[in-house]
Formats: sequence, C-alpha cells, structure tokens
Amino acid sequence: MRQKILDILRSSDGYVSGEEISRRLSISRTAVWKHINALRSGGCEISSVTNKGYRLERGDILAPDEIRRFLKTKLIGSNIVCLAETDSTNNECKRQPQLSDGTVIAAERQSNGRGRRGNAWISPNGGAWFSILLKPAISPRYVSGITLAAGLAVCRAIGCGAKIKYPNDIVIGTKKVCGILTELSAEENEVNYVVCGIGVNISQTEFPGQLSERATSVLAETGENVDRTEMIARILNEFEPLYYEFLQSGAEGYIDEYRRHCVTIGSEVTAAYGGKSIRGVCTGVNADGSIDIKTEEGTVNINSGEVSVRGIYGYV
Amino acid sequence: MRQKILDILRSSDGYVSGEEISRRLSISRTAVWKHINALRSGGCEISSVTNKGYRLERGDILAPDEIRRFLKTKLIGSNIVCLAETDSTNNECKRQPQLSDGTVIAAERQSNGRGRRGNAWISPNGGAWFSILLKPAISPRYVSGITLAAGLAVCRAIGCGAKIKYPNDIVIGTKKVCGILTELSAEENEVNYVVCGIGVNISQTEFPGQLSERATSVLAETGENVDRTEMIARILNEFEPLYYEFLQSGAEGYIDEYRRHCVTIGSEVTAAYGGKSIRGVCTGVNADGSIDIKTEEGTVNINSGEVSVRGIYGYV
Repeated sequence: MRQKILDILRSSDGYVSGEEISRRLSISRTAVWKHINALRSGGCEISSVTNKGYRLERGDILAPDEIRRFLKTKLIGSNIVCLAETDSTNNECKRQPQLSDGTVIAAERQSNGRGRRGNAWISPNGGAWFSILLKPAISPRYVSGITLAAGLAVCRAIGCGAKIKYPNDIVIGTKKVCGILTELSAEENEVNYVVCGIGVNISQTEFPGQLSERATSVLAETGENVDRTEMIARILNEFEPLYYEFLQSGAEGYIDEYRRHCVTIGSEVTAAYGGKSIRGVCTGVNADGSIDIKTEEGTVNINSGEVSVRGIYGYV
Repeated sequence: MRQKILDILRSSDGYVSGEEISRRLSISRTAVWKHINALRSGGCEISSVTNKGYRLERGDILAPDEIRRFLKTKLIGSNIVCLAETDSTNNECKRQPQLSDGTVIAAERQSNGRGRRGNAWISPNGGAWFSILLKPAISPRYVSGITLAAGLAVCRAIGCGAKIKYPNDIVIGTKKVCGILTELSAEENEVNYVVCGIGVNISQTEFPGQLSERATSVLAETGENVDRTEMIARILNEFEPLYYEFLQSGAEGYIDEYRRHCVTIGSEVTAAYGGKSIRGVCTGVNADGSIDIKTEEGTVNINSGEVSVRGIYGYV
C-alpha cells in the first residue's frame, strides 16, 4: 500500500489531496495519514499543506520496487529483500544461503555492521547497506576476482573521482566512502556461496570520533543528494556485466580498468601479513587478486593481510 | 567415573570384582553396575563371571582421554570433544567456530553425515567420525593443501595398502574406506576457519544397498579390529607434522608422497566440471590441489568438479 501511495505522489506534478488518495486506493483518510507517516519515517520527505494535500519532495524509500525502477540487470537483484534493520546484511545472507543466486538484501541500518577482519562498520540511516548473494560454480581460490569486480563496480557507480584502495575500499581523496566485505562458504574445491557486502556512505554529514578523519559520504564530497535506491541500482547495474565476465574468464578482462582506478599502485605501502610487516612501493595488482610490493630486499607478492597506503586514512 | 572404571579394568590382568571397584572409587555396587553397562553400550566389551567380577575384553570407548592415550600431537587434538550422536561433526564445528585452533570433535555416530557436494555419508556406530577445526592465517586459495595433507595422513595411518583417490577419498582396492570433507569459512583473502571432516569405516561388515559394492572397512579388509580411538589418534599424529609443513611452505613438501599414493594418477578418468565432462588420463596432481588430465585435445588443468576413476567404485 505504501508503494502505491508513493506511486500516486510520484506521478503527480503538485499536491494530491488525502481525499483523492483515499478514494483511489479505497482506504480511509486515517489509513492514508498513517501510511504517509510511515513513508516519512522510512526516509521520504513529504510536505503537506492544509486544503491542498501531500507532495513528494524526496522519495528515497528503501523498497524492492524502488530499486527496480533503476535496475537493468537480469541475475543480480532478481530477488530483492529490504529490511528496516538487521545486524548485518552479510549475516542476513549467510543465515539464508537457500535464497536464489543474485539475491540482494538491503537494510536501512545495521546494528552490527562489519568490515574486513572483524572491524566494526558504522551503518546508521543514510547509507546504502546491502549484500549480494552469489552462487558461482568455482573453486574458492578464484573468489578474489569477485572482490575486484565489486570494487570496480562501486567506483564506476559513485564516479566523482572515487578510487579504489586495494583490495576494495572506495576512497574519495584520502577518505573512505565505501567498504566491501566479501565472505564465502565453500568445500575444498567448490564454493557453496559468496556474500559480497557493500556499504556506501551516502548522506551522512557527521562521523563519530576519529572516524571523521577517515570517512566521508557522497553528499559531503559532491553536495549531491543521491537516493540510496538509485545508488544501489547503479552499483548492481555496473556489477552484473563484470560478474558475467568474471564467470567467463576471470578478472583478466577488467583488471586493467581496476588498476587505473587503484590508488594503492605506485604508493608507499605497509603490508602486515602472517605476523610480519613490510614496507615498500606497490608496483601492481594482479588478476588473481594478489599485490606486488617492491621492498629493499626485492619484490614480494602477497595475497592476504592488510595493506596500508601512505597518505590515506591519516596513515603517515 | 566411567573413565576411572575403565582405567581400573585396563590396569588389571584378569577379573576385578564389583566390590573392589566399588571400594576403590567409593561408589555403590549398583553404581558400578550402571557404569559397566554404560561402558558396554558405549562400545566396550566387558565380560562378567559370577564370583570373579569384570574383565575388559575390548575397551574401544570414544572419550577424549582414550584418544589421548595414543596422541603425540601439540596443536591437533589439544581440545577434544566426544559426542554420542550429532548430525555431522563438521556441522558441530561450524556451529562453534569460537572453539580453539586444533579442536577435534568426534561422534559415535552421525545422524546426517555429509560427503562432498551434498552427498550423504552413512555413519552408524563402528566408524571413526571426526572433524578437525583449524584456524590457519592463510588465503582461502591455499586450503586445498590441507585437503592433500589430510588425505595423506589418513592413508599413512590406515596402512594396509590404502591409496588416495583424488582429491581425498581413501580406497583399499576398488572400494572406499574413508571420505574427507574439507569446508571453510573465509573473507576474500583471509580464512576464518577450516573444518576438515574425516570418516573412516572401521568395523562395519555390511553396507546398505549398492554401497556394498563401493564401500569397505578396515576390519573387512584386514580382519584386524582397530580401536576407533587409536585410529583417530594415529591420523592426528600423522596429520600434525604435515599441517605444520603446510603452514611453513605449502604442499610442496609432501606432494611427492601424495602422488606415490594416488591411484588417480596414470588412470583413465572422467572429470565433470562447470557443466562440461571430459575423458582422459590423469597425468598429475599439483601442489596447488589441481589435477592434470591429458585428453585427445590436449592437457586440461582442473581444480573443481568431480573426477571419476575407471575401475574404482564400480565405474567402468
């Protein structure tokens, strides 16, 4: 019903009276009023003027049909679930691996959002927090190609000079605007499922504590108020062809574009892995998801651990 | 208390009277009788003769201390949990990923034992059904090295001409005596945990239906009645050094021994992967867990899917 009211408001140029909505949907005036309030608390800006009615000022409500308005995909987002709140959309997917390939689960906010390596990911109202459930028939060794594809898809969708910090943070300038957490469940040679979790800071203008030095949002960087639904759809639209390419022939087809957008390459980095820490200059990222770091002792190829980039997130 | 009674029986050459057990453990005669019956239903053979008492004929009770009697490891089996029944010891580990690195969970029987690719694994009383929980700081791409190590460890522990069918079935002649299912949970570049599930048919003499043509047990092949506890410990003893070697330098150090025990190499095989099926001769198994198959069109390198070997399990 909310979706129907939203459709009526959206299709109107000016104000629509509560009476007309009530008549067209055969519901009471009180019911209209309740749904309008629910839409407002769901993120819609709806102005109301006595004797004129309601007008939609901004319709960013997180609902499957709203995302579908912008969606051009076949597989990715063929099933969409939107939640007001969950602990983490990745957890939500992992609890329901029986959902179909390409399912997208999005939430208004996450009570326990997670980043890589157990880090917390602050996810209040105002961001695009969603996960894609994928069931590729591949060995777990190739999953990093999906990570690269997701990073590139978000980078393209955000635009406005967004870059990739290896493996798949998205940064604008020196601050993080998006994090991606890819998780997988597998047998030794066969993936059961992959969950690709994407969190984009959209309209936050303040970040708690030290995070303000490291985090930014699309609104803060561009002044533009993008709907979360449109941002999600744009990312899915960019991701799907990359994912198909990945299934066909791995990350070879898009690694060059990834490299062009990757701030890590050419930068001074510190890599912590397996209890060791090395410093050097990143000389490349490879289609298998590994990174090359040139140190004084020679070039090291790494594919696990944490790589910090000098100048990014306040790291000096 | 059961363990203490077992220890008393084991340390005695002949019969021990219920009265003596009752006195040494300060429990009632009725309690002794109840514990003896519990030991019997747990798999112990205990004979009893009026006026003489009890004698241990065969003490194969699945208990942590019983496994520890044979154990020479540090990490693997540093925590052991034994259960009468569970759905699957792999599931049991996956439900408790907070358990310590090297934890072993064993069960008398599994109500829903699983093999690779969702196949059922029949696991009544009489087999060694257990899983090892591992937390290596590695990328998921390397996990197949653990699979190779587990296969080789079981092959060594069983002895009596046991061979490996790629990737990690253990066969005697043309029949399967052990299956291994390695599962993992991971982030893109970092394993959360690996569960290595091992199921060895020990004392079964009959297998239901068509399984009788494909399955065998240690008892059926050798006539020898090995205790499950000893078999589990032998496998863990063999696995630990291989696992340490794997953590140091991957599977390179034991891939040659694996190859020597692998019946797949040199055999005619059919491989089903990614919706395709190819026939050829297996020319090698590599340290990265992949397999080479020489077909009429050239050699194909595969690292997922199912490889059937002509002559094994009745496949012709």
